[in-house]
Amino acid sequence: MAEEQYDLVILGGGTAGYVAGIRASQLGKKVAIVENQLLGGTCLHKGCIPTKTLLKSAEVLHTVKTASLYGIDTEHFSINYKQILDRKNEIIQQMYTGIEHLMKHNHIDIYNGTGRILGSSIFSPRPGTISVEYEDGASELLPNDYVLIATGSKPAELPFLKFNHQTIISSTDLLNMKQLPDSIVIVGGGVIGMEFASLLNDFGTDVTVIEAGERILPSENKNIASNLKKHFTDRGIKIYENVQLSQESFTLKDEAIEINEADLKLTADKILLAIGRTPNTSDIGLNNTKIATDAKGFIEVNENQQTAEQHIYAAGDCIGKLQLAHAGSKEGTTAVEAMFEDNTIPVNYNTIPRCIYTYPEIASIGMTLEEAKDADYTKARSFKVPFKAVGKAVIEDATQQDGFCELVVDQDTETVLGLSMIGPHVTELINEVALLQFMNGSTLELGLTTHAHPSISEVLMEAGLKAAKRSVHA
Amino acid sequence: MAEEQYDLVILGGGTAGYVAGIRASQLGKKVAIVENQLLGGTCLHKGCIPTKTLLKSAEVLHTVKTASLYGIDTEHFSINYKQILDRKNEIIQQMYTGIEHLMKHNHIDIYNGTGRILGSSIFSPRPGTISVEYEDGASELLPNDYVLIATGSKPAELPFLKFNHQTIISSTDLLNMKQLPDSIVIVGGGVIGMEFASLLNDFGTDVTVIEAGERILPSENKNIASNLKKHFTDRGIKIYENVQLSQESFTLKDEAIEINEADLKLTADKILLAIGRTPNTSDIGLNNTKIATDAKGFIEVNENQQTAEQHIYAAGDCIGKLQLAHAGSKEGTTAVEAMFEDNTIPVNYNTIPRCIYTYPEIASIGMTLEEAKDADYTKARSFKVPFKAVGKAVIEDATQQDGFCELVVDQDTETVLGLSMIGPHVTELINEVALLQFMNGSTLELGLTTHAHPSISEVLMEAGLKAAKRSVHA
Repeated sequence: MAEEQYDLVILGGGTAGYVAGIRASQLGKKVAIVENQLLGGTCLHKGCIPTKTLLKSAEVLHTVKTASLYGIDTEHFSINYKQILDRKNEIIQQMYTGIEHLMKHNHIDIYNGTGRILGSSIFSPRPGTISVEYEDGASELLPNDYVLIATGSKPAELPFLKFNHQTIISSTDLLNMKQLPDSIVIVGGGVIGMEFASLLNDFGTDVTVIEAGERILPSENKNIASNLKKHFTDRGIKIYENVQLSQESFTLKDEAIEINEADLKLTADKILLAIGRTPNTSDIGLNNTKIATDAKGFIEVNENQQTAEQHIYAAGDCIGKLQLAHAGSKEGTTAVEAMFEDNTIPVNYNTIPRCIYTYPEIASIGMTLEEAKDADYTKARSFKVPFKAVGKAVIEDATQQDGFCELVVDQDTETVLGLSMIGPHVTELINEVALLQFMNGSTLELGLTTHAHPSISEVLMEAGLKAAKRSVHA
Repeated sequence: MAEEQYDLVILGGGTAGYVAGIRASQLGKKVAIVENQLLGGTCLHKGCIPTKTLLKSAEVLHTVKTASLYGIDTEHFSINYKQILDRKNEIIQQMYTGIEHLMKHNHIDIYNGTGRILGSSIFSPRPGTISVEYEDGASELLPNDYVLIATGSKPAELPFLKFNHQTIISSTDLLNMKQLPDSIVIVGGGVIGMEFASLLNDFGTDVTVIEAGERILPSENKNIASNLKKHFTDRGIKIYENVQLSQESFTLKDEAIEINEADLKLTADKILLAIGRTPNTSDIGLNNTKIATDAKGFIEVNENQQTAEQHIYAAGDCIGKLQLAHAGSKEGTTAVEAMFEDNTIPVNYNTIPRCIYTYPEIASIGMTLEEAKDADYTKARSFKVPFKAVGKAVIEDATQQDGFCELVVDQDTETVLGLSMIGPHVTELINEVALLQFMNGSTLELGLTTHAHPSISEVLMEAGLKAAKRSVHA
């Protein structure tokens, strides 16, 4: 059989990969995706979707527990974790079927094997042909005009603490556990660690968080990190910051782990390592190319997502930018448009929202005030609006009355440099700000937009008005 | 004591009035508000805020009832309606205190009496001086440069069916009832009727809705009205459309009402009249002015909110436009800016979101496809995206999997003419579309804005992409 010549071969069928594939197909291109696991990648199978499904169950539990605050008295409730897992798996399956359908609908060929980039050869003057190896040892070649690397990432280990998948576990292990541990130490106070801390605490696990840096959520607004810390501490989550662990800190027993580090002495059933994610770039044939990676293995790309090989692009977690599904989609479509169209708009990371689905939720976009000052916005200033200035927020959640929105404004241009929020439904509210930023709107445009009353989103209008010195309720 | 001369006297301290007052104060004007009830008006005391507080309790109840779908098993729950009312009253009180504080902060004088517009006299060549009458019979005059009429509205009666506040009740009566009726007939299938139907059904009242027109929610997208009807019918709410009631339809008993009209025969504890709202304009001195009203008593204004008297403006429910709190605020600030500034932007009702806080929620903005065609948009076309195309919507609500978003686009200009949604959290999502419309954004700008994944708002992005023929998931 003659080898098929593709316009584009994509390594990896996760969010960045399959969305890029759809875009290329829309542009009339012949596309193949090589994926050795399941289409949908980390987001669908091990990340966003399963965690948010579990967090939804945690939210329902939270509502049941606090129902009496709203005049609904409940007694006798219990967690049916099997049902929670079943729901998670059903939703994953439903969405997986959807992606398979999208691939067929867009005439994208799927190769269920491991793809690697081949070097140049006497048949091919430049590197880039993809070899696909199958589990049964068979293999085939996919010649192409362009390659998009979207191989994603996997949970990182510590040099002195590797996953054994029993007591030392990753987020992937945790999502597949049939029952939850009685106690857990979460190493790492970033987004993933915080979401699991919120989830597991809601489900009754005794949770301790150990963060090496000076505070949890180091990349978020520090007032928001400390607000979350207060909520977590009130809920019984123990948080230790500035704790440097080493090999000597741990003693592994059969079914537990002891931690002994300065003032911190405890025993837990499991350790969840949530210290970040490592790119899947070590075994994809990069050595056959000029493609450069950084010290951690993340692929270096220019603003068009292009690697050092002109016809090879990269997108998603493997380039190590925001490591968010929607950032990956944007990077992937940007790469495809750079390949096949002229008018590419580079990804502007300042317009990409970031969400943390803890309870309470956190969402942000762009810069914090400190970052803006560091970036030489000398007229940067922040404006804070408490959610309790807004009626619907008061109505919505009796246990989140200390949330707030902090807007960072460049007073020279009256544009928004960044915005951070902690409070009810902020992971939805942030999308309005993403639109504002994409459209280069001003604070006054945000403030003069008529927002539905009552809605929690009014907090954004009030923030815009406050920055324009026209506060109504704030 | 010398009479105070005000730059602006506002008749009515509801949302339109007090927000306008704050704006005038920001512009350096001396402002008085005359209010014979409580600051905050219908919205705070009898409308938006109390209903949404009760609907929040209904939502919690709904979550408790359906918790097992999310793996949380509950038994034994009960409604503590006293606690629900107490929470409602506490929230009203908290927000009322907030408005009082805003008035002080903005140096706005409040007159707690009934204001009326006086005609011209030998002391005043033009009408407009406000007389304030107090309950004790005292009165005083408030001379001024400008008047804003923002006297609001009250529930309308039928010619043959008047409130007796016992069996024939208004929404205000219902909000103050210490316990809910076992059965109720809601006359009127508009927004208010539908919100109370949703609420009362959740709380266990047997609900029948009678609508004179051909369908409930006549001003909303008809697919959305029929989706809501299906949800309501499944929940046991009985809906009768095309039923013309007359005096003969009703027989009032001591503690019940019989309805007997063609095929419709039933008995209920109460009738809730929800057929619209009548302006409070009959006793405010309009007869002393040239101000015109329509047949229903709504005040006629031009695009700057100005009445036939050059220095008298009107805003809010009493002008009978959208009769929504946020429309009133916008009308009020527009009036104030027209009085005191040059560059007024007239209210564009096509950019004002409309929300219905039923379960499921409905939100819309601008025109339906039918309205767009009627308005001679010959290239108008609608694009529909189901919420189940979006992962977070699938996760969020297991009982709302048939929701959708319908985007109406002018294909000549690629702008949004309207958007309607039924589904989870749409009363928040609509605000992003309000921003898009205020900024004159295109469908492609909506579609290319990076939305957080997973978020329900992705449905808006998918709708924008679909209209631009670049669908990813829809």
